[in-house]
Amino acid sequence: MTKHLFDQALALQPAGSDHPYTWTGATSPAYWNMVGPFGGATAATALQAVLQHPALLGEPVSLTVNYAAATAEGAFTITATPIRTNRSTQHWVVSLSQPDAEGTDQVVTTATVMTALRRETWHLSDMPMPDVPSPASVPRTQLKGAMEWLSRYDMRFARGGFPVKWGGADELSPDSLTQVWVRDDPVRQLDFASLTAMSDVFYPRIWLRRPLRVPAGTVTMTVYFHASGAQLAEAGTGYILGQASAQAFRHGFFDQSAQLWSESGTLLVTSTQLVYYKE
Amino acid sequence: MTKHLFDQALALQPAGSDHPYTWTGATSPAYWNMVGPFGGATAATALQAVLQHPALLGEPVSLTVNYAAATAEGAFTITATPIRTNRSTQHWVVSLSQPDAEGTDQVVTTATVMTALRRETWHLSDMPMPDVPSPASVPRTQLKGAMEWLSRYDMRFARGGFPVKWGGADELSPDSLTQVWVRDDPVRQLDFASLTAMSDVFYPRIWLRRPLRVPAGTVTMTVYFHASGAQLAEAGTGYILGQASAQAFRHGFFDQSAQLWSESGTLLVTSTQLVYYKE
Repeated sequence: MTKHLFDQALALQPAGSDHPYTWTGATSPAYWNMVGPFGGATAATALQAVLQHPALLGEPVSLTVNYAAATAEGAFTITATPIRTNRSTQHWVVSLSQPDAEGTDQVVTTATVMTALRRETWHLSDMPMPDVPSPASVPRTQLKGAMEWLSRYDMRFARGGFPVKWGGADELSPDSLTQVWVRDDPVRQLDFASLTAMSDVFYPRIWLRRPLRVPAGTVTMTVYFHASGAQLAEAGTGYILGQASAQAFRHGFFDQSAQLWSESGTLLVTSTQLVYYKE
Repeated sequence: MTKHLFDQALALQPAGSDHPYTWTGATSPAYWNMVGPFGGATAATALQAVLQHPALLGEPVSLTVNYAAATAEGAFTITATPIRTNRSTQHWVVSLSQPDAEGTDQVVTTATVMTALRRETWHLSDMPMPDVPSPASVPRTQLKGAMEWLSRYDMRFARGGFPVKWGGADELSPDSLTQVWVRDDPVRQLDFASLTAMSDVFYPRIWLRRPLRVPAGTVTMTVYFHASGAQLAEAGTGYILGQASAQAFRHGFFDQSAQLWSESGTLLVTSTQLVYYKE
């Protein structure tokens, strides 16, 4: 059986160094964006280096990934270092590097990850899933011919899809809110890595708000995992509802706040990111 | 003239190593929390190590700080490393360490910081300052006798102050929303470091929502700086309006989303954090 393209993209091989633990991988043409890999795949790769580390304690609870430079097509090395292990929590530093033109390794992505042993506590959600039509009743957006990674997802916009008419400052959209059903195509059991990638599936909020398609790219993303591995298993291969909006656009950067729910309405992730835009 | 207590708390001395650039500092009794320093002061210290680094490019645009372990009272060393410098952006890794009982340095806090040369672009805010009474018309909350760092701030709760009656699951508050005017006491010109600390002034959202005072502590915080240094200069020594609320409480962790505005209504910061709670 051929592995899912997402698992192929995330495949890491031990590079022989244990301190710090180093893996080698390669960017995936299947998850290619415009001038580099889909940022969600890079974030998932950073998490994967932690998940397959022999010293891992517990499950991911938070991840911050910083896109320090454009990742080039091809091979990279990635190190994951458990810098502090407590009784029930663990903190990680991750670094992804590629050789420059002179062959010297340069950092292209950094990440910090926190893992923890989850336990039952008092719990409550203040972010109920918004009332949107079911995935079956929303047509799938045809994304073939656009960036390659978009073909890896089945996306159904309940609200805030790609603008049909690009304008500019004279014809602002009323908000930057998108609500979209998303799942892997072909389907794949949800896990922490795929949930990480799905936290980055939203097209730039500025494209919706202005609406103008200016050059834009995520510079840092933070993901808080509220769901346990058991809750991800329950979500199965169902659709995920993703919601995203921005709070401010200024000085060449805007933020994006996002939430992801399982099809049955469990809040799985809250996320923020900061996005560069050109003008 | 004696330096402001906040500047004393943030004072770092070169430790003699340039690669990575290492500073020494010490925790401040004036910013002491219950069992360690106020997390906002620690976050500000991590930023300070970047701000006074000779290789700094531009101004802070994002910061993530991870509280990997309790910081003990006393001295620490902090390293700030510019791991990637681009034309207009720069990425940093920061690490704060203290010796353990055997005298071996152990990491207690990590941070990643992004700085950038800000430039004028199209701009828009979708997070207007909420309509609250002016600072002068809201009484200052008396916090003397509580944790020491609280005495370093003038706080005036427009909404969501400390519960007057602690309950439990049978008497939930309707939400976890706090809106509070805050400024340094004595007053101090706002800058990126003080804005970082102010991003962490909110008491744990679970105390408000349940309302029950369970043990709780921030494990990671991300701050996006939307304001330029010039806009912080404009904010002067005026009050800052802080707003915070949670989206989910589960498995011993809850999130907090926050916004900070200048007294005149400019959105300065959006922030998120993940907070551990005991039960």
